Amino acid sequence: MIIVMKPDYDEDDLLRIVRRLEDMSLRAHISKGEQRTIVGAIGDERILAEIPMESFPGVERVLPVLKPYKLVSRDFKPENTVVSVDGLDIGGPRVQVIAGPCAVESREVLEEIAESLLPAGVHFLRGGAFKPRTSPYAFQGWGEKALEFLAAVREKTGMKVVTELMDPRDIELLYKYADIIQIGTRNMQNFRLLTEVGNIDKPVILKRGLCATIKEFLMSAEYIMAQGNEKVILCERGIRTFETETRNTLDISAVPLLKLLTHLPVIVDPSHAVGRVDLVPAVSRAAVAAGADGLLVEVHVRPEEAMSDGPQSLRPQPFLSMIEECRRVAEAVGRSL
Amino acid sequence: MIIVMKPDYDEDDLLRIVRRLEDMSLRAHISKGEQRTIVGAIGDERILAEIPMESFPGVERVLPVLKPYKLVSRDFKPENTVVSVDGLDIGGPRVQVIAGPCAVESREVLEEIAESLLPAGVHFLRGGAFKPRTSPYAFQGWGEKALEFLAAVREKTGMKVVTELMDPRDIELLYKYADIIQIGTRNMQNFRLLTEVGNIDKPVILKRGLCATIKEFLMSAEYIMAQGNEKVILCERGIRTFETETRNTLDISAVPLLKLLTHLPVIVDPSHAVGRVDLVPAVSRAAVAAGADGLLVEVHVRPEEAMSDGPQSLRPQPFLSMIEECRRVAEAVGRSL
Amino acid sequence: MIIVMKPDYDEDDLLRIVRRLEDMSLRAHISKGEQRTIVGAIGDERILAEIPMESFPGVERVLPVLKPYKLVSRDFKPENTVVSVDGLDIGGPRVQVIAGPCAVESREVLEEIAESLLPAGVHFLRGGAFKPRTSPYAFQGWGEKALEFLAAVREKTGMKVVTELMDPRDIELLYKYADIIQIGTRNMQNFRLLTEVGNIDKPVILKRGLCATIKEFLMSAEYIMAQGNEKVILCERGIRTFETETRNTLDISAVPLLKLLTHLPVIVDPSHAVGRVDLVPAVSRAAVAAGADGLLVEVHVRPEEAMSDGPQSLRPQPFLSMIEECRRVAEAVGRSL
Amino acid sequence: MIIVMKPDYDEDDLLRIVRRLEDMSLRAHISKGEQRTIVGAIGDERILAEIPMESFPGVERVLPVLKPYKLVSRDFKPENTVVSVDGLDIGGPRVQVIAGPCAVESREVLEEIAESLLPAGVHFLRGGAFKPRTSPYAFQGWGEKALEFLAAVREKTGMKVVTELMDPRDIELLYKYADIIQIGTRNMQNFRLLTEVGNIDKPVILKRGLCATIKEFLMSAEYIMAQGNEKVILCERGIRTFETETRNTLDISAVPLLKLLTHLPVIVDPSHAVGRVDLVPAVSRAAVAAGADGLLVEVHVRPEEAMSDGPQSLRPQPFLSMIEECRRVAEAVGRSL
Repeated sequence: MIIVMKPDYDEDDLLRIVRRLEDMSLRAHISKGEQRTIVGAIGDERILAEIPMESFPGVERVLPVLKPYKLVSRDFKPENTVVSVDGLDIGGPRVQVIAGPCAVESREVLEEIAESLLPAGVHFLRGGAFKPRTSPYAFQGWGEKALEFLAAVREKTGMKVVTELMDPRDIELLYKYADIIQIGTRNMQNFRLLTEVGNIDKPVILKRGLCATIKEFLMSAEYIMAQGNEKVILCERGIRTFETETRNTLDISAVPLLKLLTHLPVIVDPSHAVGRVDLVPAVSRAAVAAGADGLLVEVHVRPEEAMSDGPQSLRPQPFLSMIEECRRVAEAVGRSL
Repeated sequence: MIIVMKPDYDEDDLLRIVRRLEDMSLRAHISKGEQRTIVGAIGDERILAEIPMESFPGVERVLPVLKPYKLVSRDFKPENTVVSVDGLDIGGPRVQVIAGPCAVESREVLEEIAESLLPAGVHFLRGGAFKPRTSPYAFQGWGEKALEFLAAVREKTGMKVVTELMDPRDIELLYKYADIIQIGTRNMQNFRLLTEVGNIDKPVILKRGLCATIKEFLMSAEYIMAQGNEKVILCERGIRTFETETRNTLDISAVPLLKLLTHLPVIVDPSHAVGRVDLVPAVSRAAVAAGADGLLVEVHVRPEEAMSDGPQSLRPQPFLSMIEECRRVAEAVGRSL
Repeated sequence: MIIVMKPDYDEDDLLRIVRRLEDMSLRAHISKGEQRTIVGAIGDERILAEIPMESFPGVERVLPVLKPYKLVSRDFKPENTVVSVDGLDIGGPRVQVIAGPCAVESREVLEEIAESLLPAGVHFLRGGAFKPRTSPYAFQGWGEKALEFLAAVREKTGMKVVTELMDPRDIELLYKYADIIQIGTRNMQNFRLLTEVGNIDKPVILKRGLCATIKEFLMSAEYIMAQGNEKVILCERGIRTFETETRNTLDISAVPLLKLLTHLPVIVDPSHAVGRVDLVPAVSRAAVAAGADGLLVEVHVRPEEAMSDGPQSLRPQPFLSMIEECRRVAEAVGRSL
Repeated sequence: MIIVMKPDYDEDDLLRIVRRLEDMSLRAHISKGEQRTIVGAIGDERILAEIPMESFPGVERVLPVLKPYKLVSRDFKPENTVVSVDGLDIGGPRVQVIAGPCAVESREVLEEIAESLLPAGVHFLRGGAFKPRTSPYAFQGWGEKALEFLAAVREKTGMKVVTELMDPRDIELLYKYADIIQIGTRNMQNFRLLTEVGNIDKPVILKRGLCATIKEFLMSAEYIMAQGNEKVILCERGIRTFETETRNTLDISAVPLLKLLTHLPVIVDPSHAVGRVDLVPAVSRAAVAAGADGLLVEVHVRPEEAMSDGPQSLRPQPFLSMIEECRRVAEAVGRSL
């Protein structure tokens, strides 16, 4: 950490800082330039981050030098983490596809959707049992009944189940039914939820918050890993910008950036990112080309009857074509799909 | 709701839409212009919002006409809601000040801070028992012990206690200790938490999410009111923009806009909005001038020792001066403080 | 255009609106619903846009139905526009690459860079003669001398010259030297500059403004086309968001969205979008996969000596590898490069 | 400037950096910590900014220590700059109001508007002769004829004329007619325009760009001052965010922040910031409370007939009431209006 002193600081200010650093077993390295005096605080940046250095008299600005996360960092673990679900790898050479409806509506419709996905080689079925909805008057999900439908379809098709946790009180229920637990975008900084999924041994998909920085996103993954669960899959799903033609703006550079900063697998949700079916195929191809380890796509047999997110749900036929295109792009970048 | 048809739609597309609307007991009003055909869907907009009209063949775009919220709307209740805590009104002619440390650190420090606030006429003490922190390695709050300290200081000073709920499992605990329960910015769309505070009879401060639109903010308030709790206080606390000199960007126009759209009281948190003490007084004055019903301010006797948010915590002396300035501004706009 | 009336409007308000519309030879279609009365204003949306309908008494909101642009719209011209420069097509099946330094520094360095690009099959050389720089103390470009260097390198290598216009007074000079004139991101709404390049017959690359919506971007292209110049190439180059790890955020969905809305070619500048060489190859592959018609890349033989934008300039070797990767992706999506 | 080395840098990397710094007569101060080695580059930060340090092998990150601007900085000139126009001070104890229509429409309407402003004590009349419009089909301003109308109204009322420069070729014309020249938000980084107004001796209002950071805003002011014109007035006019209920988001904290960083006067344009008349009075009061030196307000006698920006133009009566309210707030913060 670099502490930049104000031009008019006095020696007592400097002494107070040095003393505080030494109290915490940190070292201070002072450098007096022509225009500014600078203190290099040497030691564990996580301890340093806890001292409100900006509040000390004479301090102009504080510049962190090291990253605030550790376990998720590629510095800490250089090789890729591969999250395995019954032999299906996420983060390995094969790009995995997770697909299905936004919300589980009925056993019949879910089955119909699942079967439409099989020809594309999809092994993971998504479907919400508990739905975080902006409106209190909107459909909130069928809860445990939906989980039962998901389990029944898993039984029948062999597909793995991905579903979202919204409430720490539901963790045992979800643990029982899900193969992968999803933490939604609105809960990326729901730290109690992160702690709960950190304490289990199931893979977790952590979706990036709507306006979370990459650093905050990684800090949330660090929360989960700090509890002991190393099976974290990061999901870029679009951030909020001023643009209104798309639901959100897919931050495509997040894919290579995350692969650089962390060893964790990175997948992309093109459906929430753009919010309109006519753009989903193009951004899915882009995600694969940029190095994503997987796609999380909303598919519905009859979007006009969907109880949630119809406008961004692909019909099976365009979905199959899109997967074909993505497969060719995957091969072009040395992967399979 | 207005449904704009594509230029090349066919009559079956139109029929299908009309039939679907009629199935839901809504009326369709068709208007064929030179360049576009438009369907006016007439009826309850909340029912309409549930139909994924964009997914119907032939539809180009859907434009909502009515607001998606009802109970929070000034159309629904034209007169101001005043939330009363033991005779202290929030939303009345007097601008209320809620102040205190970010986190409760020790009983002694809390008492010292509370006493420093009394000369300013502050009746509400804030202090976090459970702290949502970006880093898993940061101080997470003292939990129930902190609540006990808050209660002890209330006993001694008569100040009302404002503290944050982070987990639905803590609702009974907080209900016991707090006079006002705060829902933090990261939990504005934690719908389970909103439902919990909707089911109690204590006042709730709902903080605007970091990148929540005004409409989403009001929908979250609607969640609480839809459960039966009408004592909702809205808090603008800065939104995330590209600017990095301040922690967030205070959306000052949110104050008059919310007062226009809703009957609920609106307060401002200048501390989180700007994140630096040197700007807090000016934006506090601005908030009062714009019509805010209250201020939520971080104050600490020794910010350089604060366990959280030191850089944005005012010391007592500058806080007192600021309150003096705000009082004069309040009077200039016909209120007291 | 849809005009939504306030719940408490009176009949005179409605009459005044109808009369104003009729005065402009537009038609009004009134629809009275349970909660709102709506006026459909039928006629040329561009005329409608000029009437400040929101200022009429009794009006709550105005919703545009049609797009405000015409000449650039795919509705107006369904087939792709291909911009040809001496037989080299931009917007055709081949993805074109434009590469070179940010600023032209010396004839020798420019030549060295140009020659390093030839093995990649690059036919277009970029290089700034006039540089828009944030700081008045930064290098502003060598002006006409730089244009002469570009012309000399064109002579020697056969590469086409792409360079930026900053000032309407330089149009004749640039016309003389450039094969394609670039309008930079800061000038996307410099309407006088748009008018100037609209009056010539050379191809124009129009870069999207840092925080321009897609609609505004297309309106700026409309400015150029409205003057008669149809050779407009749109360039997505990253928008400004809250993320600070990258210089900007590449809006990858802008590529398919623009291809949907307009017939004009769309290229991507990955260098300015991310601002760091370690991410340029991944986002370039993504751009090609998403359907971009070209790439605009900063390349320098010795970035550490570059007079501008060193940190985002690729060295020749990584650039060649990246082009190889992009070629494979282009083929995967049915194109060449 | 602080240069943070990668963990795996080698000694040659360090030597190369030290040598480059010494070549530019700068000093290097090396500090080896447990986890990172850091180089403090000591000397003129503006020279440092020109070296692309991130491009040197072994460099992880570069952190600037000093501000990149000088002439505009309060460090450079601690006392407030007061810009005087014929004895009317901007930046002094009195808050100045600049008001008028968006565009000059006719001499009669301009006169009518000007006369309606006089009872409010307004001494500055705004009105556009050249209008930057998003659409090529929108009214672009009457040009020199509008300037003549402005001059005629000045003659009659004694009001000073504020009008916008869009093209460097119009500088002589505007110099002849205007008392204050405005640089619009879209031209904040039109560096040729900044250079032109830097070379004259008239006051300049520089509007903040739609998504300009405070640092970029000040760098643009530095451009003007670097040419010799010290009469620069900064204008905050709203930035672009995700919020769509208002045209832009007024960054109220920019007012005290700019007053801290620079000695230049700071005014606020509430009309463009919010874009709707119902919010203009509240944010105007906020601006005055936050310390703004002036307001720039759109007023029109008949907004429903305005040729530009009708929806955000106040009618004279509400404008007078608003000025009365602002005057009381000004007095509450120790100023007059």
